[in-house]
Amino acid sequence: MDLSVLKYASRFDHVSGSAIREIFKVIAQPGMISFAGGNPSPSALPDRMVAEICSEVLSENGKKILQYGATEGYPPLVESLKAFLKSHLNLQADSVLPVTGSTQAMDLLCKALINKGDNVLVEDPSFLGNIQCLRLYEANLIPVNSDENGLIPESLEECILRYHPKMLYTIPTFQNPTGRTLSLERRKKVAELAQQYGVIVAEDDPYRDLRYSGENLPAIKTFDREGWVVYLGSFSKIISPGIRVGYMAGDSGIIRKCTIGKQSSDVHTANLTQAIVDRFIRKDLLPDHIRSICADYCLQMNKMNQFLNRMPEAVTHTNPEGGLFIWVSLPDQMNALDLLRQAVDKKVAYVPGTHFFVNGGHLNTLRLNFSNSTLEQIATGMQTLCDLIENNIF
Amino acid sequence: MDLSVLKYASRFDHVSGSAIREIFKVIAQPGMISFAGGNPSPSALPDRMVAEICSEVLSENGKKILQYGATEGYPPLVESLKAFLKSHLNLQADSVLPVTGSTQAMDLLCKALINKGDNVLVEDPSFLGNIQCLRLYEANLIPVNSDENGLIPESLEECILRYHPKMLYTIPTFQNPTGRTLSLERRKKVAELAQQYGVIVAEDDPYRDLRYSGENLPAIKTFDREGWVVYLGSFSKIISPGIRVGYMAGDSGIIRKCTIGKQSSDVHTANLTQAIVDRFIRKDLLPDHIRSICADYCLQMNKMNQFLNRMPEAVTHTNPEGGLFIWVSLPDQMNALDLLRQAVDKKVAYVPGTHFFVNGGHLNTLRLNFSNSTLEQIATGMQTLCDLIENNIF
Repeated sequence: MDLSVLKYASRFDHVSGSAIREIFKVIAQPGMISFAGGNPSPSALPDRMVAEICSEVLSENGKKILQYGATEGYPPLVESLKAFLKSHLNLQADSVLPVTGSTQAMDLLCKALINKGDNVLVEDPSFLGNIQCLRLYEANLIPVNSDENGLIPESLEECILRYHPKMLYTIPTFQNPTGRTLSLERRKKVAELAQQYGVIVAEDDPYRDLRYSGENLPAIKTFDREGWVVYLGSFSKIISPGIRVGYMAGDSGIIRKCTIGKQSSDVHTANLTQAIVDRFIRKDLLPDHIRSICADYCLQMNKMNQFLNRMPEAVTHTNPEGGLFIWVSLPDQMNALDLLRQAVDKKVAYVPGTHFFVNGGHLNTLRLNFSNSTLEQIATGMQTLCDLIENNIF
Repeated sequence: MDLSVLKYASRFDHVSGSAIREIFKVIAQPGMISFAGGNPSPSALPDRMVAEICSEVLSENGKKILQYGATEGYPPLVESLKAFLKSHLNLQADSVLPVTGSTQAMDLLCKALINKGDNVLVEDPSFLGNIQCLRLYEANLIPVNSDENGLIPESLEECILRYHPKMLYTIPTFQNPTGRTLSLERRKKVAELAQQYGVIVAEDDPYRDLRYSGENLPAIKTFDREGWVVYLGSFSKIISPGIRVGYMAGDSGIIRKCTIGKQSSDVHTANLTQAIVDRFIRKDLLPDHIRSICADYCLQMNKMNQFLNRMPEAVTHTNPEGGLFIWVSLPDQMNALDLLRQAVDKKVAYVPGTHFFVNGGHLNTLRLNFSNSTLEQIATGMQTLCDLIENNIF
């Protein structure tokens, strides 16, 4: 029988996985200045520290690291993570599970909680990877309105009352793709609504430490009394995305279900990469390393902003206090997909904003990343982009 | 609202994840001789080689290894894996995807293919982890009869005709838990039936290289002309389970769907652990290392067999030519769960066979692992076990 008769699972019916794939092929071209992607800067990747730590942990504990580990995590990391959450986030989590990148945390949370057709509230626009994750669990995605201060509590409550959602997925700090941050008052309110109505909040917080101005805000999870909020953390932006270590922290019952789900997802996260993160925490290497990353990224963001601030008034953009992204709105009649073609011809790339919206549209928006380009590349690329936009306006 | 009202996803309705969990708590007790588990021997874990390779790859290619990688895999590994499959297995796969342990290969294959209620054929008994995986995708599991030569083709065809299954899950070589190997003729027949009726075969082959006698047999995949067979491979038994690197090889369309599924499972497998496996292959370290592992395991298996061969006739056991496990059948009236309690009191542990059967039962069976005990431990533990069994018979 010819394989062409094979039917794939219906969860793939509305998932192509190719939305921004073509863009990433394009940015691989030599000489391209890429404001697409969300990669850390090469200078933010501590290769020498990791090499040193690897040699340390393998000589001290090699046999144990190469042996099967517990699904619950490499015991030293579970311990150091708890201390880290306490000191760093003032977060006393019932239970912490190291995972294979915080993407896996989202996958396991969906596995534990989402039935086909369950309503899930999402920011609109939001992070593509986790939107795809929710789609593969056949959740029914419902966009909630946001403004400069993040999710609007009135819209959130309205959606909760109307759709009885199972979950809210939110990135409260330096959101991807907009760079917006949920205000303190609203953080309290989100936790309160979650508890009042019994809605799980997946608080995805990978950018929290990349703050270049303003004050740190407490996680939504710190206002959670009953356990409705699950905190998803990542070391991708502050150590390395290539080692794939993140974690989830929350109620023990929920984490236990996720752990059972993880048994048949990948048994456990690689011990070696868990041991690397453990040493980073125990040697207290993170504060200095984060400071050095932030100093660089701040300059890069400011450089990008200089160019955006010179744009015609009809072009607006967000003013993040940290993170990796700035969100740009062109005049209504302009199309960021068309503009991308012209930009790529001139060796500049970004991601059109439409891809981040649950129902598409918003063709005049785009996302710019500044972390993975040098100041020179930002100057050159932004000049090109500004010229293009101006030419298209007039 | 109190969190106790939270409803988990229905895929967990029949999955507790705790079947053999209690046993593994027990074997952690000091002084326990454990024939449970399936861990490699510490001496089989090449900690020094891995330390050397880590330092090599991080100094040569550290920034790239710490950066985000492609979901499709670390490019050097994809290349070396293809060469490895060709030379090692005579397998020219359309497409190869490195994954986070071959457990993830099974998870992704289910994600790509299995709808709730789909019929899936499994050996009975079979590997618990992947049975749990299939249950979490709400497959309807149908046991197929096996004998000393593995799956019985007539039973397989009968089940195919009756249940129109989406997939057959099989471990053809040194099966877990029985140690049985599918014969050459039957391998051809399985590939033929898969193609004739349009059934996906998940060929899970992690033990293939652990052969202590007899001749290597070609993978079922090598007889597959249309792409119905997907080959799942692992480096857990021949390098390290703690690094979590496996792969799947098969038709490009199927692998592409699995790759899209992997995007939201963990984005990609850690580059560092992929780079370790890549170097093992490129430096041609595997043949010698496998030879040394096999030499040790062969002695361990023979030692265990010495004791089993001395048992009363009513106690039977399989005679594997490799792998990690021997399967024991006690007289019908004996209960391996009860026996385990007595054994644990005398500091010996194993896994009762009932846990490996889709519908339980078979209370008189048990699985013994020999790879993770020294010859002395095997002698002591098996003497204890033999005495216990004899006492219970008479």
